[in-house]
Amino acid sequence: MKSYRKELWFEVPARRGFVNITPQVIEALRTSGVQEGLCLVNAMHITASVFINDDEPGLHQDFETWLEKLAPEKPYSQYHHNTAEDNADAHLKRQVMGREVVVAITKGKLDFGPWEQIFYGEFDGKRRKRVMIKIIGE
Amino acid sequence: MKSYRKELWFEVPARRGFVNITPQVIEALRTSGVQEGLCLVNAMHITASVFINDDEPGLHQDFETWLEKLAPEKPYSQYHHNTAEDNADAHLKRQVMGREVVVAITKGKLDFGPWEQIFYGEFDGKRRKRVMIKIIGE
Amino acid sequence: MKSYRKELWFEVPARRGFVNITPQVIEALRTSGVQEGLCLVNAMHITASVFINDDEPGLHQDFETWLEKLAPEKPYSQYHHNTAEDNADAHLKRQVMGREVVVAITKGKLDFGPWEQIFYGEFDGKRRKRVMIKIIGE
Repeated sequence: MKSYRKELWFEVPARRGFVNITPQVIEALRTSGVQEGLCLVNAMHITASVFINDDEPGLHQDFETWLEKLAPEKPYSQYHHNTAEDNADAHLKRQVMGREVVVAITKGKLDFGPWEQIFYGEFDGKRRKRVMIKIIGE
Repeated sequence: MKSYRKELWFEVPARRGFVNITPQVIEALRTSGVQEGLCLVNAMHITASVFINDDEPGLHQDFETWLEKLAPEKPYSQYHHNTAEDNADAHLKRQVMGREVVVAITKGKLDFGPWEQIFYGEFDGKRRKRVMIKIIGE
Repeated sequence: MKSYRKELWFEVPARRGFVNITPQVIEALRTSGVQEGLCLVNAMHITASVFINDDEPGLHQDFETWLEKLAPEKPYSQYHHNTAEDNADAHLKRQVMGREVVVAITKGKLDFGPWEQIFYGEFDGKRRKRVMIKIIGE
């Protein structure tokens, strides 16, 4: 069994944003040499997500509006977590969007259906944060 | 390490619906011959889910009502994504329900607790769509 | 390829509660002897979650309040599932929080970013319930 690990680093300039990381995951898979296996991609922070959905700017605006409706950032005082912090909403938003994805690897490629793209979802940005790619297989 | 891949195809006749795919996953596992490992089951479309919950029709009605409350289908004009499309709500609903499940394989069986059943959740149906089963192990 | 399986049992005394299970997962990983691989941790019940977030009591209060807003327990009669049962809300809450996490194993350790802790989320407690840990790798 082969295993391969790579970190991706980001500094999203706004509090929230979505970054398409599919090219970096494809590159990591190529480097790993794994032909058949599983590829785990996860946020390494608890105020961020990794998820698979559409690379369509209108949809990303809809995600932003929707997540703000489900778990509003403000008023900060509505959350018990916001004493020394102001990011409780980011912890909630990340639960809706998920921490990680697991993608099948077949014949050396991410085994995707149509339109599947992997995103880093930042909900508490303006600082350097990480995603991990872990690949296992043969 | 063994690996096995199978696609399941569906055409749900309504816009939304839930299909119990546990028997097909069990059959795929049997065919794979894997005794110990992991089984990934994921939607191959970004307007559909794979999730594990109860096979109880009342609960499925509750899921439908609840998801419509969290991310209503209409009015279509409330979503930026709905210019050429009308399925923004399906992209949101799928985030709540999830893209994939990973199930442990032990002694050649899906290692489930009581009542766990695997479902395909369709949120933009009336066309042929796919689920992938990827099994790795020994 | 090595594989290792362990069940953790809980009886949360209230209907809802969060239990940090990171120490037990670390102990299982140590016992498994796996150095490189994947660690699946999943609820074995469909009214409970396993998720990764912050071990901060204020945030856990926020999760409780937020989940009750998204999928209220009462009135029980609002859910079709609640005929012989009263736990439809628990099935919904578990979808928001997720069934499982998959964690990378690197050099014999859970490959975590800062503050990542694994929790069992109980939404229908007062009885004995289980979590599974399944580790595969080398």
